[in-house]
Amino acid sequence: MGSQDSERVITGWAARDPSGVLSPYSFPLRNTGAEDVYIKVLSCGICHTDLHQAKNDLGMSRYPMVPGHEVVGEVVEVGSNVNKFKVGDQVGVGVIVGCCRTCHPCKAEEEQYCNKKIWSYNDVYTDGNPTQGGFATNMIVDQKFIVKIPDGMKPEQAAPLLCAGLTVYSPLKHFGLNKSGLKGGILGLGGVGHMGVKIAKAMGHHVTVISSSDKKKKEALDDLGADEYVVSSNAEKMQELSDSLDYIIDTIPVHHQLEPYLPLLKLNGKLILNGVISTPLSFLTPMVMLGRKSITGSFIGSMKETEEMLQFCNEKGLKSQIEIVKMDYVNQAMERLEKNDVRYRFVVDVAGSKLDDQ
Amino acid sequence: MGSQDSERVITGWAARDPSGVLSPYSFPLRNTGAEDVYIKVLSCGICHTDLHQAKNDLGMSRYPMVPGHEVVGEVVEVGSNVNKFKVGDQVGVGVIVGCCRTCHPCKAEEEQYCNKKIWSYNDVYTDGNPTQGGFATNMIVDQKFIVKIPDGMKPEQAAPLLCAGLTVYSPLKHFGLNKSGLKGGILGLGGVGHMGVKIAKAMGHHVTVISSSDKKKKEALDDLGADEYVVSSNAEKMQELSDSLDYIIDTIPVHHQLEPYLPLLKLNGKLILNGVISTPLSFLTPMVMLGRKSITGSFIGSMKETEEMLQFCNEKGLKSQIEIVKMDYVNQAMERLEKNDVRYRFVVDVAGSKLDDQ
Repeated sequence: MGSQDSERVITGWAARDPSGVLSPYSFPLRNTGAEDVYIKVLSCGICHTDLHQAKNDLGMSRYPMVPGHEVVGEVVEVGSNVNKFKVGDQVGVGVIVGCCRTCHPCKAEEEQYCNKKIWSYNDVYTDGNPTQGGFATNMIVDQKFIVKIPDGMKPEQAAPLLCAGLTVYSPLKHFGLNKSGLKGGILGLGGVGHMGVKIAKAMGHHVTVISSSDKKKKEALDDLGADEYVVSSNAEKMQELSDSLDYIIDTIPVHHQLEPYLPLLKLNGKLILNGVISTPLSFLTPMVMLGRKSITGSFIGSMKETEEMLQFCNEKGLKSQIEIVKMDYVNQAMERLEKNDVRYRFVVDVAGSKLDDQ
Repeated sequence: MGSQDSERVITGWAARDPSGVLSPYSFPLRNTGAEDVYIKVLSCGICHTDLHQAKNDLGMSRYPMVPGHEVVGEVVEVGSNVNKFKVGDQVGVGVIVGCCRTCHPCKAEEEQYCNKKIWSYNDVYTDGNPTQGGFATNMIVDQKFIVKIPDGMKPEQAAPLLCAGLTVYSPLKHFGLNKSGLKGGILGLGGVGHMGVKIAKAMGHHVTVISSSDKKKKEALDDLGADEYVVSSNAEKMQELSDSLDYIIDTIPVHHQLEPYLPLLKLNGKLILNGVISTPLSFLTPMVMLGRKSITGSFIGSMKETEEMLQFCNEKGLKSQIEIVKMDYVNQAMERLEKNDVRYRFVVDVAGSKLDDQ
C-alpha cells in the first residue's frame, strides 16, 4: 500500500466567507505518506464549533474551509509504516490531526494540549497546505490521530462521540469522576450536554439536568435517562440541590452567571467548563474557597482517551441521539443548530450524499 | 481539674464599632467544661481578616469584638475529658473553635468546611454567648480545636503559622503539590504570601514571587529565599514565565485581573485563591480549558493539617518573619497593616502586655 504518484483531487463542502454557507469545493489531498491513513468518509457530525469557524466567529477562519471534526470513515489505503489499521477498517478522526510530539503534554500522551497541535480543518498542515475536515468524500490523516471504531458500532452513532462524547468523558476520567455513585449536574442540553447525561449515567452517576426552562424536561428524563431536571429560576429546587453535586459539566456556549451554580457543588466539587465563550465569566472568591471548589475546564481528550471512551460506550451500549441528514441539507442543519433546534446532534451521511452537485 | 463554680471575668482588647479601634474590655468566660482547655494567651498574630472584621468590612461584625485567631497560649486548666493536653503545655488556637461533627466535611476531618463551624471570635458559641479571640489574657476552647505547639518552637514564631501558615500548607497538601521539584508562584507578599514562599521552599519547590512593583525584590530573594522575582508589568519576563508553573498561590486581598497569571500555569496547573474579595473576579473560559487549569481556593486547613504543618515547620526549622508588638500598639499595628507596612506579620506579645490599662 504505497503512495500514489500524483496528488488526488477530492470534493467537499466548503464555506467561502463569513456567511458560513457551504457549497461544493474541489481540493487536492496529499498522497499517502508512510504514516498516513487515507479514508473514505462515511459519517460526520456537526458540532457547534463548525458553526463558529464557518462564520469566523472566533476571528481566525481561513477560506475556503471544509468543516467537520467528528468523522467516521473506512480505510482505503495505508502508508508503509502503518500496522495498526488495514484497508476496510472503520476508523474515526476527531478535532486534531497533528502535534509536536516533543513537548511535555505530547510526551504525557495528552497531545490535545500541545501548543503546536494541528486542527483537523482551518489550520495548516506540516506540508504547508490547509487542513480540511470531514464534510468531504475523503480525508488523509497521520495514523497517530486515527482510532479504530469498535466492531458493531454504527458510523453515525460513533461520529458524535469523537468530539462531543470525548469532551465529557475526558474530564470525568481525568478528575477521577468516573466512579459510580457520584452526583453530577449537566448545564446546557445540546450536543455535548446530552452526551454528558448519557455518559454520566453509563458511569453510574445520579444526573441532574439544570436548565433555564422546562422545555426539555420530558425528553431529558424519558429519552436521555436523567434522574432529575431543575429549572434554574426555581429558587426552592435550587436550594434543595445545594451542596449536593460532585461536579457540574457546564456546556453553555454563551456568557452566563456562575453564582447560581457554584453553591450546588459539595466540598471539593468541580465546575467543568466546556464552552468557549468570548466574554469573561465571573465569580466571587469565597464561593470557591469555602468548599475548596474548582472552576476548571478541559479540551476534547487524548487519542488514548478516545479509544477508551469508544470502548466504554460500546460496552455500555450507549447510543447518541442524532438526526441524520444528507450533505445538501447541511446549510439548513447549521441554521437549525444555531437556533438549538436539534435533538441532539446532526450527523451528515457523507457516503450517502452526492457531494459534487448542488 | 474540674470546672470552677462561677464564671470568670477576663480582659481583652475589643473593637466597639466600625471604626475598628480596640480598647480594653472586660468580659466573662465560661467555666471549664469537660471538653474544654483554659489557656493563658502568650502571643497572638494580627491577620488581615482581623482588620476586616474589626471594621465591619464584611458587614457581619458584632460588637464588642475581641479579634485574634493566631493564638499561642499555655494551658492553665483542663476539663475532665481532656487527656491530650495538660497544664503547662504550649498550645495553639486558630480560626475556628466549633463544628457540627456530623456533616460530611466533619466526618472527613475537614471541619473547616462545616457549614456550622464556629469562628474563634465574632460568632456565637453553643452556649449562646459571643466568642472572643486571642487579644485577651485568656481563652477557653474545646479540646478538638487545640493543637500542641512542638517543643522548641517559640510562641511568637508559632502564632502566624496557625492561620497564615496553614492557609498555604493545606491546599499544597490537599492538591498533591507538597512534593519536591515543583515550580510555584506566589502572588502578593503579605503575611500569607511570605509564608507561602517559606513553606513552598521548605517543600523543595522553585518559587517565583510575582509582584506589581520591585519594592520587595531584595527582601523576597535575600530574606525569604525566593528563587525569582518578576514584576507583572514586565511583559518579557512574564512571557518567559508562561506555561511553567505547577501552581500559583494568589494572596492578593483586593480585586485584580486573573488574565495575566493564568497563562503562567502549565498543563493541569492550579490557581489557588486565598483572598476573600468582595467584588467578582473574571476569566476567559479558553484560558482554563486549553491547559485544563483550575481556579480554586481553600480556607485555612483542618486541625489534623494544623498538627502536620506545625511538625513540618519545626522539622524544617522554618521561621516566620514577624514584628513583635505590645497590646498598646495594636491600633497602630492595624493601621500599618492596612497600608501593607509590615514585614510580614505583627504578633502581639499578649503575656508581656498590660491589658487592663491604656
